[in-house]
Parts: sequence; C-alpha cells; structure tokens
Amino acid sequence: MISNKMQELVNNNSVIREMFEEGQKLSNLYGKENVFDFSLGNPSVPTPEKIKETIIHILNTESSFTIHGYMNNSGFEDVRQKIANSINKKFNTNYNFQNIIMTVGAASGLNIVLKSILNPNEEVIVFSPFFIEYKNYVKNYDGKLTIISPNTKTFEPNLEEFEKKINNNTKAVIINTPNNPTGIVYSEETIIKISNILKEKEKEFNSTIFLISDEPYRELVYDNIVVPYVTKYYDNTFVVYSYSKSLSLPGERIGYVVIPSEMNDFENIQCAVTISNRVLGCVNAPSLMQKVIGECADLTVDISQYKKNRDLLYNSLISYNFECIKPQGAFYLFLKSPIADDKEFCKIAKKYNILMVPGSSFACPGYVRISYCVEYDMIKRSLSSFQKLAYETLKK
Amino acid sequence: MISNKMQELVNNNSVIREMFEEGQKLSNLYGKENVFDFSLGNPSVPTPEKIKETIIHILNTESSFTIHGYMNNSGFEDVRQKIANSINKKFNTNYNFQNIIMTVGAASGLNIVLKSILNPNEEVIVFSPFFIEYKNYVKNYDGKLTIISPNTKTFEPNLEEFEKKINNNTKAVIINTPNNPTGIVYSEETIIKISNILKEKEKEFNSTIFLISDEPYRELVYDNIVVPYVTKYYDNTFVVYSYSKSLSLPGERIGYVVIPSEMNDFENIQCAVTISNRVLGCVNAPSLMQKVIGECADLTVDISQYKKNRDLLYNSLISYNFECIKPQGAFYLFLKSPIADDKEFCKIAKKYNILMVPGSSFACPGYVRISYCVEYDMIKRSLSSFQKLAYETLKK
Repeated sequence: MISNKMQELVNNNSVIREMFEEGQKLSNLYGKENVFDFSLGNPSVPTPEKIKETIIHILNTESSFTIHGYMNNSGFEDVRQKIANSINKKFNTNYNFQNIIMTVGAASGLNIVLKSILNPNEEVIVFSPFFIEYKNYVKNYDGKLTIISPNTKTFEPNLEEFEKKINNNTKAVIINTPNNPTGIVYSEETIIKISNILKEKEKEFNSTIFLISDEPYRELVYDNIVVPYVTKYYDNTFVVYSYSKSLSLPGERIGYVVIPSEMNDFENIQCAVTISNRVLGCVNAPSLMQKVIGECADLTVDISQYKKNRDLLYNSLISYNFECIKPQGAFYLFLKSPIADDKEFCKIAKKYNILMVPGSSFACPGYVRISYCVEYDMIKRSLSSFQKLAYETLKK
Repeated sequence: MISNKMQELVNNNSVIREMFEEGQKLSNLYGKENVFDFSLGNPSVPTPEKIKETIIHILNTESSFTIHGYMNNSGFEDVRQKIANSINKKFNTNYNFQNIIMTVGAASGLNIVLKSILNPNEEVIVFSPFFIEYKNYVKNYDGKLTIISPNTKTFEPNLEEFEKKINNNTKAVIINTPNNPTGIVYSEETIIKISNILKEKEKEFNSTIFLISDEPYRELVYDNIVVPYVTKYYDNTFVVYSYSKSLSLPGERIGYVVIPSEMNDFENIQCAVTISNRVLGCVNAPSLMQKVIGECADLTVDISQYKKNRDLLYNSLISYNFECIKPQGAFYLFLKSPIADDKEFCKIAKKYNILMVPGSSFACPGYVRISYCVEYDMIKRSLSSFQKLAYETLKK
C-alpha cells in the first residue's frame, strides 16, 4: 500500500522504536532513578523565563490577525530583519531581512534547501560521523549521499578524501559544527581549507557547489571556543539554524535559513527556497513563535549546566580509562567502544542500565554517542555503573 | 543553480507575486479604503479569546520541558485522544489517539500522506475546480495529476468522467468539501456514489485507492448544511484537517490527519505517515499549539460573520445579473465570468479597483473566485463598483 521509498524507512524504524521501548522496559523493571538514559538529544536546561513573558506580552498587545495570521512564506519581515541585525552584530556580517527565511526548525530548513537545489542523482557529501537523517533528507529529492570516512584522531573532517571525492556531479556538502555526535567544533583553519577546496573544485568543474552549514548547536560551546561563521569564508553557503537547543524550544519547530546575497544566482535561489517552504507544506514557520524570536534573538539558555555535565562525565570516563575526544560543544560525547562491535558494547552497557546510541547509527562504528543533556544527578548516579562497564569491557 | 523542478515553480511564481503587488499599487494610488481586494483566503474573523486564555494558562501551569519539548513525531498522545473524542462525539465514529497524527497544518498533512503512498508516476485524481497547490504536492513525489472536468451546473463532481478515468495506476483521489473555490458542500449522496465507485474499482483492479478528504473548511457551513464525515462511507480515507480557518490560526500551522483503523494495512500506513512527518522536516506539529488545541478541540470562530458577508455579496451580485451558484460553505464565491476570458474579466474588474482570482488558477477557466473573508464594510463599499462592472461586461 505504501510507497517503496517509505517501506524501506518503515522497516528500519523498528530498530529506533525498540531502543525507546527498551528504556521504558528497564524503567519499569528497575525504577526510573536506576536507569541511565543517555540516548536522547532532548534539551535538559529549561527554556528562559523571558520566552514565556514575551509570549504573554505579544498576546496582550497585538491583534489576533497579526499574531496568528498568514504572512509572506519567508516569514515576518520585521522578525527576519531583527535576526539579521543580531547575526550582523555577533559576526560582523551585512545581512538584511532578504537574507533570512524563517523555517519550521532546522530539519525543515535542510529539506527546503535540498529541495531547491537537488536534481535526481546529484551528490551531497557528508563527513562521518553524521546525523543519520541527512541520508533521508537527501533521499527525499532522489539525491545521492557520498560519505567521507572519519578521521578518528581528531574528528575534524578528512579533507584529503573529501578533495578526491568531489566531482562534476557534486551539488552540495553538509557540515555540522558543533557536531552531533562528536561535540567537535571545526577550527577556522578547517573552514578555510574546506572553502579553498570548494572554490578550486568550482573552477575545475565550472559548477556551483553549495556548502550547507547545519548549526543547531552554535551557541552550545564551552571554554571560549569560537565557532567560525561560515558565510564569511565561502559565498555559496546556506546556514541552517534552529532555536531548538539555544532556547530549549525543540517542540516548537522554529529556525531559519541564511542565504547570503553573494551566493551565485541569489535571487533565484531565495525565491526557490521560499517556494519550497510553501509547496512542501510548511507554508511558513509558526507565526507566534516567529514573533517571540524577534524579541529574543540574542537570548540563549544557561549553557553552564551543560558544561558542568560535560566536565563531570568526561573527566570520570577518562579516569575509568575510556578513550574519548573532549567535546567542545553541543551536548554529546563520542566514546571509543573498548570492543570492536559498538552494538555489542551498547548491549553490555544495558546490563548496567546505561542506554547509549551505537556509532553505527552515525555511520561510524566502533564508537558510541552519550548525550549529556540530562540531569546532573543522573550522571552522578550513573558513574559507578560506568566504572563497572569499564571494568568488564576494558581488557588490559 | 536550482533544481529543474523548482525552476519551473519559480518561473510561475511571478504571476502570483504580480497579483499581490497589483493590490499594493492600487492601494497606494487610490487609498486602501477604495481598493476592494477579494483575492486572498486569509480569515477575517478574529481568533476566539479562549485561545489566548488557554495559551497563558498552559504557560502558567506546565513546565517548559512539557510545553516546548519533543514528543512522539505523531504528536502528544493526550491531545490526539482529545481530538479523537471530539470527532467521535460529533460524528459518531470510534477513534482513539492512534488514528490521529498531528501535523503542521493541512498543507503538510497532504504532503506527508502523499509521500507515504505515492510511487513515481502513480496517479492522483482531482476534481476541477481545485486548489492548485494539489498539483505541486503531487509533483513533489513524482506522481501524476489526473483532472476531472467540472460540472458547471452544480459544481458537484463529474462522476461519469471520474469513473472512466480510474485505472490500475490510480493511487488516490483528493476531494475538498466545503470547496475552495466554489463554496459547494458535497451531498451525502455524492459521497456515497464516490465511495461505491472506488470500492468497485478497487475490486476490478485488485488495488487500494485512497480517498484523501481535505477539510480545512469543515466548520464553515451555513443554513444548517451537513458535511458528511467521509471515513464512515469509505474505509481507505485519510481526513486532512487544519485549524487555520475554524479557529483563525493560519499562521500557526496546526492540523491533523485521521487514519481509520479500518484502512487496509493500517499499522504500516500509520507508521509511514509518522515517519514522513519526521523525514520531510516537520518532525512534529508545533508543541504549544498542540496543547492549546487539546483544550479547545470543540471551539470554532463566530461563523455568523462569514454568513453575513456571503448573504450581502451573493444577493447583490445576483441582483446585478451576475451568475453564481450559492455557496454553502467556506468563504468563497465562484462567479461566472460574463466574458469568456476570465483573466480579461479580472483585468476589467481592476479598473474598478476590484481584485479577484481567475478561475484558470483553479483549472476552471470562465469563472472567477471572490473571497468574502473580508470586512463587511468593504463589501458594502465595493457594491457600486460591482454594479458598474456588471454594466460594462454583461451584454444584454
């Protein structure tokens, strides 16, 4: 009955469902406080109180037609201008409302960008490990995913392989920094190298290769790490942003896409992305939330709580002799599995009521993702279990 | 730079943009109060005050994690159950939360249903006149649109042609009642006939043919007209609903899809629609608005204002000798163009500062759509202009 494309996804879905059900089952068996679920990427720091105050203020001061009505498919012009101003102030860019398109979160932003640019069989490059949904987004438009193998020393992208795999069929490259699942932030040097490679390849193939920078974790960085603003290095860049993490609003589906005026064929592309927003069915980003963002463009959650979680978990795991690159941002930690089979390692961890996601789910076997967007106390309670897990799996 | 599919849409888009700009231009020239814009489908009746109260109540009583957090891609279970209860009460059905999937409005609901069922080149049947975006939605999944020509006597569907055009490649049929652009409500007799034809054809071709009932105007009906609940007549029906019109929340993008348990392959399809919601990038319907709907599932705007508009406009136009079927629902009136070329008629109307949409935009030339979701006073002010338009175009 259902389409062939979807049947494949439905078949794979049972694995994800099983993982969720597993957590539920363990909670029922051992009590919620004795299960250590590090599998989800759901923000654990509350939404700032200012969001609530702003919603109420808007409801009390504007007409229902303005708050809940249709607007241009790109979003409210004043909100887009306020976001442009906020970006300009932070990153010394020069955007106005025409460079910003409001979207139903970053997932939808990625979809409308890919729909706008991809012809069937054109290639999109991603760097392993990567958020596995990219595969589905590319497949939605019959594109072909090209995966660059990981550099497991630093988890910076493997640029030699990248350079070799670009061809005249390459339409786009997706980067995600701060990264899910590694927590790594690409250095300025890396961004410059990627830009230079792309510029050379554009010349070589006389083509446009788009860089899509997926940045839902931009504000979640620690130790004064700087996240370079990619459009400053490469004109043909889409920045895809979401407030899901920076304001703990994942359920509200609010984000935006930045399209620099310097992008090749800017007007045509801006129009295509706006139309994609409409015809894919989003029509526009939720209107009340757009207005809220307009008033809170510079606000972020209290990220010190994530840093505190990272420090406790990272330092403890290292002290138990686990191997792991220190995360610089996002709320994930990418642990080397002490045994070759990461799925098997996750299975053993479950004996200690620890739930993690195998690296295979990010096209990077041999590792596991631990989400530390959880209560600090849960991390504390979990440590003796991690120690036992280390003892069982780390053969000397 | 952009995909071939999108380039086509971008090229067509200029027509729509010109229409919007035309209204702006006329307003600047003659003053806003002297321009009669009947071209848009934007609700003109305010959102009920209860919506605002409910938002504030939720913000004051629930935690930010619940209000703004992720949930199952199908939506909050309690909200889905409340919607199921509301439908059961009104239409004597027997749904529970598993039959309801919360969506980013009806446009997204239609997209995730079509993505779930359509293989390339499979056919979707629509009845002219129809909301032209259906064409784009079907094209998103490489389906083929089959258009049934209009029955301009009643604007009920042309069932003889319908029956002939169904073949073993037919995957779905979209109906929209109350209808945009005619305002017609399909009678129970019509729904029974459509169901019977589909059941016979399913047997003949040993296939499943889905009926997709797009119902954003369900509550906007006048004179005690009854809108049959389609799942009661045909099991393989998706009902696609939106609160854009019934609660004047078009910018918020909130709606749902009903999937009856009696549908062939129900579990597989329910799973596919949920996954489509995720991979197309919506992920889930906006969370705060879901919660609001849960508390306001039985609420509707004051539709008496639309009825008052309809009565004044319809009676006046008929008295000027225009021809038009009396609308039973929605907020549109489909006027017969007194001259064969509906685009030319719209051009003449513009001389009188009247803006309407040509029927060609609904695959039904020779007619024009007049949206009466406008201020009552604007209709009053426009009447002498309509009278002049009648005088110029209605040759005796």
